[in-house]
Amino acid sequence: MSHDTLMLGVDAGGTSTRGVLVTEQGGCLGYGLGGRGNPTSAGLDRAAEGVRAAIAGALAATGRTLAEVSVIVFAIAGQSGVDDRDTAWLRDPLAAEGFRGRVVLESDLLATYFSGTAESFGYAVVAGTGASVIRVSDGRIDAVADGLGWLVGDRGSGFWIGQRVAKAVVRDLDGAGPATTLTPGLLEMLGIEVDDVRREGRGGALVQLVKSLYALAPIELADFAPLAVAAGDPVAGGAGDPVAAGILRRAGSRLADSLVAVLAGPGPLVIGGGVLGREGLVRDAFLERLGDRAAGLPLLPVVDGAVGAGLLALRAGGVTVSARTLELVAATMARFR
Amino acid sequence: MSHDTLMLGVDAGGTSTRGVLVTEQGGCLGYGLGGRGNPTSAGLDRAAEGVRAAIAGALAATGRTLAEVSVIVFAIAGQSGVDDRDTAWLRDPLAAEGFRGRVVLESDLLATYFSGTAESFGYAVVAGTGASVIRVSDGRIDAVADGLGWLVGDRGSGFWIGQRVAKAVVRDLDGAGPATTLTPGLLEMLGIEVDDVRREGRGGALVQLVKSLYALAPIELADFAPLAVAAGDPVAGGAGDPVAAGILRRAGSRLADSLVAVLAGPGPLVIGGGVLGREGLVRDAFLERLGDRAAGLPLLPVVDGAVGAGLLALRAGGVTVSARTLELVAATMARFR
Repeated sequence: MSHDTLMLGVDAGGTSTRGVLVTEQGGCLGYGLGGRGNPTSAGLDRAAEGVRAAIAGALAATGRTLAEVSVIVFAIAGQSGVDDRDTAWLRDPLAAEGFRGRVVLESDLLATYFSGTAESFGYAVVAGTGASVIRVSDGRIDAVADGLGWLVGDRGSGFWIGQRVAKAVVRDLDGAGPATTLTPGLLEMLGIEVDDVRREGRGGALVQLVKSLYALAPIELADFAPLAVAAGDPVAGGAGDPVAAGILRRAGSRLADSLVAVLAGPGPLVIGGGVLGREGLVRDAFLERLGDRAAGLPLLPVVDGAVGAGLLALRAGGVTVSARTLELVAATMARFR
Repeated sequence: MSHDTLMLGVDAGGTSTRGVLVTEQGGCLGYGLGGRGNPTSAGLDRAAEGVRAAIAGALAATGRTLAEVSVIVFAIAGQSGVDDRDTAWLRDPLAAEGFRGRVVLESDLLATYFSGTAESFGYAVVAGTGASVIRVSDGRIDAVADGLGWLVGDRGSGFWIGQRVAKAVVRDLDGAGPATTLTPGLLEMLGIEVDDVRREGRGGALVQLVKSLYALAPIELADFAPLAVAAGDPVAGGAGDPVAAGILRRAGSRLADSLVAVLAGPGPLVIGGGVLGREGLVRDAFLERLGDRAAGLPLLPVVDGAVGAGLLALRAGGVTVSARTLELVAATMARFR
């Protein structure tokens, strides 16, 4: 067992990072968790610390060292295809700890995909704060739709939903849109009390709300997405508020539109992120929009890209991955989480 | 003539500032132009310089001095109702130049309104980079709709149109939306060449476009609004691109929705800003949405708030303004511009 070739997969995300130590025969030997691992959003130093913690955690209980690892695959958004010179922040600390193997960068979306299937052709829709769709062919990303950020893209994402929640409440308070139970929900979440004081021809609650919203980074509007589910989704116990329900249904349609943009025949459809991850109005509208095509796209929800990072590490180590490999990695990893 | 009471109106905007020296009998005696005058967007120092230049220009050819001015009205966005302590940047330089009169702050929207009418009841729709609607009653702002900024409001504004132009082009290039002539227009404007190189499953033009867009301040997306008119508005010689035309029509509807939110009977409707200022699809859709109500709302397009700032100054000086006052100020001001 100690002479197995060791491989490491790292699923480095915007809020947390997972390290997965794998062997061809044994599946997952060790698993570690770290903090934020995306250098674009967290900065290089913080991301390096998140990655370091995840790798250290994966090795910790095994008695093995980095010197025994032949390859490390990092699955990080926006990092695949970057120049070697730009990966010093990953390579240098590893070398200092005795790592002599190869470093491979992959898309985080591909790790999510391989968390759900080992098929070489298929799709992944990942809708969390942002929203991206990939088509995978020959085990590689063949086409991407959306993933284009909050300002012009990420249609149907948590940000997209949260911004529409904020806009709907603003319209309600401004008298330019229908009343919605999203309004008391958002005002409560932001600690704004409703009063009858008018200032400059506007209600006091609206003035305070707008001030609160512009004090946020735009992307933080994603935090309001759960309000739409709570108010509009009967599956979540929501009271069926029509404004909230409409936002959720449109989100599902938009995500389907992005998938349709890369659709090229039947295949497994891996679902990552919270927006489409559970049953409810978003999922219903998504499937409705796909219509008959949905039959050829079996839905495979996954929690993150950890299992897939393990599969990508095995593949980078020369292992041919199959449905059985996926099962083994998933089952052995389950012991650790 | 030299014993007339002098009053000064200052229409301080985001890109330029106008100073208007008026008397009860003579209308506009002098007119001056300055740079950016809004302290929120330009900063206090720059705004003070813009205001100073406009006032100096208004006095320059008259041989009169600030010591002879009884009151100055500043029409500035977001500044009416501010505390006395917050206006030192305006008052102190004036005092240093011998001004001993009163300072009054008013909304820039009210100055726009009085550029078009002297009626004490009516409306103004101001749609430039942002979009605001006011209802005026007893010569004061009685109700406001929108003006809530690019992130959650400004429906139908230049920003609103420009962001939709960017999104439409992104969807076109991403394969998730219809082809539109906005695409070559925007790529040319941003200096992006179309090539066939694909990177990470995406076309090279899309990757470059997204990079260019996120390098902008969000509000700069307003610069793309003219592309929609050029591509979609037959009145402007646009080829009738359906995507562009649809954006313009929706903008007109949104502006009408904001007006409807404060509508309380017939009255003059002053139109400020470029979006609704000329005939075309936005104006058509705006009037269509208003339907029968449009008949009671005569449209009065104005170029800026300079005439209205003059009227506000006269009013602050104790003069009762009438349609005749408006005519006199407008006619006498016309000599200077």
